[in-house]
Amino acid sequence: MSKIHNFSAGPGILPAEVLKQASEACINFDNMNLSLLEISHRSKNYEAVIAEAQSIIKELFEVGNDYEVFYLGGGASLQFAMVPYNLLRENGTAAYLNTGVWATKAIKEAKLLGNVNVVASSEDKKFTYIPKGYAIPTDADYLHITSNNTIYGTQIKEFPKCPIPLVCDMSSDIFSRKVNANDFTLIYAGAQKNIGPAGSTMVMVKKDALGKTGRKMLSMLDYNVHIKGGSMYNTPPVFPIYVTMLTLKWLKANGGVAWIEKLNQQKADLIYNEIDRNSLFYGTVAKEDRSNMNVCFLMHKPELEIEFDKFWKDANISGIRGHRDVGGYRASIYNAMPIESVQVLVDVMKEFEKKFA
Amino acid sequence: MSKIHNFSAGPGILPAEVLKQASEACINFDNMNLSLLEISHRSKNYEAVIAEAQSIIKELFEVGNDYEVFYLGGGASLQFAMVPYNLLRENGTAAYLNTGVWATKAIKEAKLLGNVNVVASSEDKKFTYIPKGYAIPTDADYLHITSNNTIYGTQIKEFPKCPIPLVCDMSSDIFSRKVNANDFTLIYAGAQKNIGPAGSTMVMVKKDALGKTGRKMLSMLDYNVHIKGGSMYNTPPVFPIYVTMLTLKWLKANGGVAWIEKLNQQKADLIYNEIDRNSLFYGTVAKEDRSNMNVCFLMHKPELEIEFDKFWKDANISGIRGHRDVGGYRASIYNAMPIESVQVLVDVMKEFEKKFA
Repeated sequence: MSKIHNFSAGPGILPAEVLKQASEACINFDNMNLSLLEISHRSKNYEAVIAEAQSIIKELFEVGNDYEVFYLGGGASLQFAMVPYNLLRENGTAAYLNTGVWATKAIKEAKLLGNVNVVASSEDKKFTYIPKGYAIPTDADYLHITSNNTIYGTQIKEFPKCPIPLVCDMSSDIFSRKVNANDFTLIYAGAQKNIGPAGSTMVMVKKDALGKTGRKMLSMLDYNVHIKGGSMYNTPPVFPIYVTMLTLKWLKANGGVAWIEKLNQQKADLIYNEIDRNSLFYGTVAKEDRSNMNVCFLMHKPELEIEFDKFWKDANISGIRGHRDVGGYRASIYNAMPIESVQVLVDVMKEFEKKFA
Repeated sequence: MSKIHNFSAGPGILPAEVLKQASEACINFDNMNLSLLEISHRSKNYEAVIAEAQSIIKELFEVGNDYEVFYLGGGASLQFAMVPYNLLRENGTAAYLNTGVWATKAIKEAKLLGNVNVVASSEDKKFTYIPKGYAIPTDADYLHITSNNTIYGTQIKEFPKCPIPLVCDMSSDIFSRKVNANDFTLIYAGAQKNIGPAGSTMVMVKKDALGKTGRKMLSMLDYNVHIKGGSMYNTPPVFPIYVTMLTLKWLKANGGVAWIEKLNQQKADLIYNEIDRNSLFYGTVAKEDRSNMNVCFLMHKPELEIEFDKFWKDANISGIRGHRDVGGYRASIYNAMPIESVQVLVDVMKEFEKKFA
């Protein structure tokens, strides 16, 4: 069968060698002659997986032992609740930056647990830009930001200098570029965009930020319980964490974040340059805030979409129809997306222009 | 390589054909030429998986449209919190039967949300029996029971006639035997014992029992949110749910619950008869409460354990060391365990007796 160019927004593309190892582990994991799906998570073979999945996060983020890493189920959506549950003091206030659908959902959950101060929002222009120059209240318990917006295709290029604990949902651009992780108190990411399959969510948090809310806590919602349990307070999502670990090892083995950042910039430049050059297409968001992960674009003549859809489908391209809130097209070019596939899409756009401009 | 006889207590054994399909789906799912791990959960191919995973539960339980089925991450441990969060009225009381470690954990979470009435407990005899003849308070919001105790090897053989909503953690014996599911208001099960891999938890609930607590609810903890979202309010644990669906289809295709109940009884009889016959071993729990899933047994002379360990390891048996709370041995004989493997264990016990009795 011919190769599919997978631009899916998430769950998104994973490295072929990771998929091969994942497939093999379903039959025979770690030469145990047993499937990874049917062994104890307390076996020494799996304990090595969890340990590696934790330590590689700290290595790639270049942080020390003041941070703890663990994996949970429930996706970023569960973290929208767990962040205020663990960090927002009873009767305290949390600050949120609203840059789209996911930030809005995070704000909704925080409001159920305390006061929320939305420091800035780009809702006035349908989330097509990243607000800047906003004031951060120094008496709030934390500021929550969303580093990349999958739906609208915006990305925070410069993180705010933050006088209070900074919390970031990095689900859709984690390890796509260098960040100074030590500036963050908490980083979380659903794995299924850049670092693994659905079902595994990474949380990295500064230990000393926890235990201050005064809240009586349900065990499974308490970060300290998961830290104390070594990311295995209860049976973890064994297979999704394994594939996440493989994906992170793939990144590290190929050159780490510095390597992928350069490649991601080349991929983004390739397609954004074509969008700007091509007379049939235009980008949807402010140029300085364009996401290097999710590239959203529309056609000047929407009636040509039917024809364009035939073009890219013929080229074995998959998953570039835009989110229903934006329409048009969205090419998600996560870490595992090869530049060759981006070139295929660009070539299709060029050919399409020749025929229909 | 020679076959391993996998008696792991959980995550536990899965059918070989399910593992093969799971392995294939990691490379090419549903002839999409894409991995199941990198496609949208909103693709029609995956929506068919979720739909099947929901409908087959209702089919196997023989329940109608007054029940809703959905899958979550977080395991049974998260349900320990979500059950009272969704069913225990503010200032209300919930009744719990305490039959072991898991029930104790469920009770702990419920106490964080309201009043708990423990109707009976077998803690006085280290959970080696199932309490019977207890009174159920008619003014409690629900009675919570644990159908099978994985650690101590007990199983509720006859469910209580319950004048209030009956809630059951069936994690370790779901679909191992016929139950009258219509007697239950809510059944939940972490998949990793009998119906799938870790990372997928099934919840089946009567719609009309929900929305009565008066509690302001976090979205991800609200059963109604997941029902309304069709089990996809957020990105679900895609792969674990797929393998769960495959395991349930395997059960159905082979004859369903009636078929497996008969087979499970044969497997249990085979090993319990040997434990009772063999002069070196004895069972740990009251005979009438013995689990057909987790068979716990000890040696009269514990000093022989080192020798016995060599015997079963030589026979390619895996995972029968007992839980640290009980010691000795625990043979977990879940649905996917072939009777041939149980026979291998029984033969090993017989040979061992010949040499060491």
